[in-house]
Amino acid sequence: MNKNNKVLLAFSGGLDTSFCVQYLKNERNLEVHTALVNTGGFNSEELKAIEQKALELGVASHKNIDKIEEFYRKGIRYMIFGNSLRQNTYPLSVSSERIFQALAIVDCAKEIDAAYIAHGSTGAGNDQVRFDLVFQVVAPEIEIITPIRELRLSRQEEIDYLAKHGYAYNWEKAKYSINQGLWGTSVGGAETLLSDGVLPESAYPVQAVKQGNEKIVIEFENGEPVGLNGKKLSPETVIREIENIAAPYGIGRDIHIGDTIIGIKGRVGFEAAAALIVINAHRLLEKHVLTKWQQYWKDQIGNWYGMMMHEAQYLEPVMRDMEAFLESSQKFVTGSVDVCLQPYHFNATGCRTEHDLMSSKFGEYGEINKAFSGDDVKGFTKILSNQMKIYYAINSTDTIN
Amino acid sequence: MNKNNKVLLAFSGGLDTSFCVQYLKNERNLEVHTALVNTGGFNSEELKAIEQKALELGVASHKNIDKIEEFYRKGIRYMIFGNSLRQNTYPLSVSSERIFQALAIVDCAKEIDAAYIAHGSTGAGNDQVRFDLVFQVVAPEIEIITPIRELRLSRQEEIDYLAKHGYAYNWEKAKYSINQGLWGTSVGGAETLLSDGVLPESAYPVQAVKQGNEKIVIEFENGEPVGLNGKKLSPETVIREIENIAAPYGIGRDIHIGDTIIGIKGRVGFEAAAALIVINAHRLLEKHVLTKWQQYWKDQIGNWYGMMMHEAQYLEPVMRDMEAFLESSQKFVTGSVDVCLQPYHFNATGCRTEHDLMSSKFGEYGEINKAFSGDDVKGFTKILSNQMKIYYAINSTDTIN
Amino acid sequence: MNKNNKVLLAFSGGLDTSFCVQYLKNERNLEVHTALVNTGGFNSEELKAIEQKALELGVASHKNIDKIEEFYRKGIRYMIFGNSLRQNTYPLSVSSERIFQALAIVDCAKEIDAAYIAHGSTGAGNDQVRFDLVFQVVAPEIEIITPIRELRLSRQEEIDYLAKHGYAYNWEKAKYSINQGLWGTSVGGAETLLSDGVLPESAYPVQAVKQGNEKIVIEFENGEPVGLNGKKLSPETVIREIENIAAPYGIGRDIHIGDTIIGIKGRVGFEAAAALIVINAHRLLEKHVLTKWQQYWKDQIGNWYGMMMHEAQYLEPVMRDMEAFLESSQKFVTGSVDVCLQPYHFNATGCRTEHDLMSSKFGEYGEINKAFSGDDVKGFTKILSNQMKIYYAINSTDTIN
Amino acid sequence: MNKNNKVLLAFSGGLDTSFCVQYLKNERNLEVHTALVNTGGFNSEELKAIEQKALELGVASHKNIDKIEEFYRKGIRYMIFGNSLRQNTYPLSVSSERIFQALAIVDCAKEIDAAYIAHGSTGAGNDQVRFDLVFQVVAPEIEIITPIRELRLSRQEEIDYLAKHGYAYNWEKAKYSINQGLWGTSVGGAETLLSDGVLPESAYPVQAVKQGNEKIVIEFENGEPVGLNGKKLSPETVIREIENIAAPYGIGRDIHIGDTIIGIKGRVGFEAAAALIVINAHRLLEKHVLTKWQQYWKDQIGNWYGMMMHEAQYLEPVMRDMEAFLESSQKFVTGSVDVCLQPYHFNATGCRTEHDLMSSKFGEYGEINKAFSGDDVKGFTKILSNQMKIYYAINSTDTIN
Repeated sequence: MNKNNKVLLAFSGGLDTSFCVQYLKNERNLEVHTALVNTGGFNSEELKAIEQKALELGVASHKNIDKIEEFYRKGIRYMIFGNSLRQNTYPLSVSSERIFQALAIVDCAKEIDAAYIAHGSTGAGNDQVRFDLVFQVVAPEIEIITPIRELRLSRQEEIDYLAKHGYAYNWEKAKYSINQGLWGTSVGGAETLLSDGVLPESAYPVQAVKQGNEKIVIEFENGEPVGLNGKKLSPETVIREIENIAAPYGIGRDIHIGDTIIGIKGRVGFEAAAALIVINAHRLLEKHVLTKWQQYWKDQIGNWYGMMMHEAQYLEPVMRDMEAFLESSQKFVTGSVDVCLQPYHFNATGCRTEHDLMSSKFGEYGEINKAFSGDDVKGFTKILSNQMKIYYAINSTDTIN
Repeated sequence: MNKNNKVLLAFSGGLDTSFCVQYLKNERNLEVHTALVNTGGFNSEELKAIEQKALELGVASHKNIDKIEEFYRKGIRYMIFGNSLRQNTYPLSVSSERIFQALAIVDCAKEIDAAYIAHGSTGAGNDQVRFDLVFQVVAPEIEIITPIRELRLSRQEEIDYLAKHGYAYNWEKAKYSINQGLWGTSVGGAETLLSDGVLPESAYPVQAVKQGNEKIVIEFENGEPVGLNGKKLSPETVIREIENIAAPYGIGRDIHIGDTIIGIKGRVGFEAAAALIVINAHRLLEKHVLTKWQQYWKDQIGNWYGMMMHEAQYLEPVMRDMEAFLESSQKFVTGSVDVCLQPYHFNATGCRTEHDLMSSKFGEYGEINKAFSGDDVKGFTKILSNQMKIYYAINSTDTIN
Repeated sequence: MNKNNKVLLAFSGGLDTSFCVQYLKNERNLEVHTALVNTGGFNSEELKAIEQKALELGVASHKNIDKIEEFYRKGIRYMIFGNSLRQNTYPLSVSSERIFQALAIVDCAKEIDAAYIAHGSTGAGNDQVRFDLVFQVVAPEIEIITPIRELRLSRQEEIDYLAKHGYAYNWEKAKYSINQGLWGTSVGGAETLLSDGVLPESAYPVQAVKQGNEKIVIEFENGEPVGLNGKKLSPETVIREIENIAAPYGIGRDIHIGDTIIGIKGRVGFEAAAALIVINAHRLLEKHVLTKWQQYWKDQIGNWYGMMMHEAQYLEPVMRDMEAFLESSQKFVTGSVDVCLQPYHFNATGCRTEHDLMSSKFGEYGEINKAFSGDDVKGFTKILSNQMKIYYAINSTDTIN
Repeated sequence: MNKNNKVLLAFSGGLDTSFCVQYLKNERNLEVHTALVNTGGFNSEELKAIEQKALELGVASHKNIDKIEEFYRKGIRYMIFGNSLRQNTYPLSVSSERIFQALAIVDCAKEIDAAYIAHGSTGAGNDQVRFDLVFQVVAPEIEIITPIRELRLSRQEEIDYLAKHGYAYNWEKAKYSINQGLWGTSVGGAETLLSDGVLPESAYPVQAVKQGNEKIVIEFENGEPVGLNGKKLSPETVIREIENIAAPYGIGRDIHIGDTIIGIKGRVGFEAAAALIVINAHRLLEKHVLTKWQQYWKDQIGNWYGMMMHEAQYLEPVMRDMEAFLESSQKFVTGSVDVCLQPYHFNATGCRTEHDLMSSKFGEYGEINKAFSGDDVKGFTKILSNQMKIYYAINSTDTIN
């Protein structure tokens, strides 16, 4: 093969990927292009600084790619439809954005006709699998380079190498490793390496300073959050605004102990006020407008969808089939939901929707009903109990216990 | 059939069942025996008062039956194993205790050789199905009488009837209908009939008065809560103590919108601090000691177990098979869990267990691992992506979206 | 309510529904209209005879409604997509056609503005539930009359009543009760009432006379059977032709022991050569073009879809969501399948499809592979075993057994 | 580490493992011990011949290990309980026996204190994963050697190597690669590498020579096959006898297209008359004695159990939990089943069991019932349709299609 020498490196501006730039240039003699995919974690100032750093490090080109809207439309949207929480806890904040970052990186590599893609993942976590897998599936012809995983250098060795090549930055190690994005922030540190460690308040990027309580109203249309407190907004904006309002209450913090793709247990703190509030509000609305079996099956599928998203399997074709199911189920998930915020806690307290199956026109629970009689229920119960009645008549009720 | 004229009435001391006593005596000429099954909602004083009232109303006999331990052992225990919450919200507080009440009533009816069982359920709710179904399955030979469902009298008509027969009690209608038991308290009222009604603080039997925060430590053995803050206790006592400590924080309150057995939506407030805390602590411990697939399947089964418990299907034989699965899964669910309590909110913050799969001996998440190399993960990812790679090679990556 | 006196009766020409005509006219003083919905069980001659009989019995109008295409498009099609077999055996031949018959009847009743719908179901089977349920859901304002269920007359009493009103037909009781339709034929008789009764050859409408063997080739497009032996045909025609070719081999016969909607077990013989052949051929093709998880989830959903179809729950909204899933999954289920027919037996022996994931370009099973190395598999296995390795290291391998 | 130089080689007597003996001795300087685990594929003569060959090749010791009973008790038994068929087709004949072979090999290696285990799997199939995974999980301290996978020699190179070391056997390449065991025989060949290849009659070890038909009666006790045609036998013997009777009819042959553990599709022919007959008979009996929901959940669990067994995950702890479920479900699966055999085809035609829920005492399907009335069914249907009625009243019936 007559490969060109272009590499596209997924670049974050941190020590690892800065090292990669120099390593790829000097040791592998590649023409290094960098890109950063923003799925909601960077503001324009930060983006400019990262671009600046890339150029300082001597890359051939750098590109900041905005994938916030796509991350919402192709990922978050279905996770809302599916109320997807890993182990009923974690809204897949990082897991899901990695996929869309990888997809954008590979698109970018194809655009510049790079023969190589590089990323800075270590050999110990989920991200290496997410990046490698997406790259291999979508562009098997592009070769993957992972200097950090392969070289296993210490921080100091990387710093020294950069210094040797003229880049003597001041690389302070943050006490907590933070990853921010539209669907939440993860927080790792010494405490999360222990099964009973508790993250201190200071570990969280947004401090819990608000007191009292506050009501917000989220408007949903076909399952998507399209308005807040009476204002129509894009779903991405609804999410961001809720985050801004709720995070200062300390809402949405928890610790997740997950099964990584590679089979070990991992513990991570997170703060995802908007994700948790939107999912809970959405679920409340669904309880009013969906039938029992719709909810039952949405649980199965939403749970699996989240699991595969987490485990780098977003490209599995079954995910498209699940999306079709989820989309169909949202036909009447339209209405507004009240959420009450208070320190460290929120409650979805009620909803208004034209599709409310809890309509007093058809009988109120516990009140005398208009649509059926006690005799109907007696008949219902008789038939419902038929198989058990036969079972115990034949096998004796002694077998109950 | 030469039936005797004995009826056993499930008696609570309230207006409806008091009316039933008189009605069964006077209109149906039956010898009325009453029983109350305590699944944790009554203290000894209340029990005495109810017995007293039954005797005043002229029953042939009254019996208070304590089924707290059995309710725990045959019901709550498996709902803890299964982390069973209806729609991820409601711990089946009332649904589950009705089953064990019905089972005790039918046993009692058999003991006194009653030809009839009577209960005071209306024709509009779940309870009629639960009572009827259990009675029919376990004792199809006993006839069921449901005066309230059949007569559909108003409160005033019942009061008048009782007065006419010499029982002119003062029957005040409580603003909120409360049902208490070991696994939680339900609260119904005008607000729960609306899709966006919010129960006022005063509706809850236990007021939220505690401030600050507090840590408790729950000890589990094979999935059962067997100790609190270092003291070994019976599981029922652990549950009761947690309730006593946590309820005054306002912890465990929520509103559940459920699909009733009879197909309409019902909304009910509840306060179940102990149930929610125990289940969350239990789940946290499981995240550390169970494998990914154990957790996945426990979710399926615990969810279904809760659904059938809710829908009066406790006697379905599949429930025994599910209990066997759940019991097997608890082999190593042994350890202690920290829970932090604060107003309206709690957090299971960590655990200690000998069976912790998040052991640093085998590699820490995000750190360099001892048990496998980056190369192993590369191979893993290659094989994991095989089917998708083939799929897109054949069907083209254009089909991704 | 000022109801009109029109009734629409679902009419089959048999004793029960002939009795209903006279009963509704004479005892209920209604203007009787009849309709027969053909879902594949009647040829034009039979339809003419039935219409003739209805008119002789003095109905105000009779209508033969052809719903074969709709039965295929809205029912069979999804059961093929879902490979839906009740208990891996029965292709829901009768269960599914009843639904589409009921829907057509209720449409017809609305067209003629009937205040009543009548059907001839007894009180002992599934069909009463299917008819009642669909009628109630789609047209709750129309009252349902079920003379056979209510009167519980003997055959002789019905015959005598008809004779008394001048209709002295010769009503021979067939030894076997047969129900034919596009998706199969059910056969009930004395033998199916016993758990070990075997239907004699003579019970089947099509005799097994063919010897030797024969190969057919079915062409599928997006999961639908659209061609046979090289000829493009409508799916209904493909099904019918396969039935004509295969039934004379005695193929497709079996006995199903099912759980009826009303909780008792029911046993029924059936002959459904086309349904079984099409589903098996379709499944074979899917094994080649779908991924493992697509097949896994299709099994879940196809199985549930069949169960709900069987149990009269076709109108449950979750069915529409499942149809969306199933439809999405058929994107590449296009190709041709060979089926070998021989007496009482058939085999789907192979397929040809452009979307075959078993492509030798990507490695043949058991041969040395091009896409990955033995080292990759070693890494894969190492990571795959990680969690178990940790589990047994902590909990000891003694716990295996 | 101060490792000894003992290696235990899983030995079959074929070219690959014969090569391994010499390779391990000469190139790796190891003391080679061999073992063969018999899970039903070898008779005593064959075992003797294999032992003889091992000794000729100069091994330090050889052991034939009989694991037929254990394979049944810990594997087949649960696959019968779960009616486990891969993709409703393949009874996991090879997949499951590999696991028990691997477990026995690792036990044997521990007994002789071997520092190494070797096996002859190639790098292209499932078996390498099954062996490696079991060895790693159960004995992570033992190093695995896989000469065939690593060296990737041609047949001729292996033959030459053996000849060079004095072992000039006549190694004929069989046209079909056959693997036999208690739970079935797999057949691979040129035809199975194509998506539409058909294996010729001659490819099967047992020829289809029987004509006519024959009835057998299988007796089950708690789900286990314990008798045949009136004789009590061990389950292993029942399986073997059925195989002997049925295989000469050509019964039990099919082709399976499976998803391998490594992500590619694999096609394999098989003949597993006994496995298919026992599972079908067992399932028939279950249809009579289990409730609807027991069957539903057994399907889920049996299917998953089979999938994990296939994919080398037998040691996953969830498998033990599933076994507990399956075992519990077999409480009343006791009775005898008639099976009719004929060329290439069999039918489970009926059963007799004391636990038959299809008891005429409680109502016959389609006949007038004793346990409930048409009115009960009307009430049942009314309540059953409640949620849909409300749904369409609110959302309009236009939404049906």
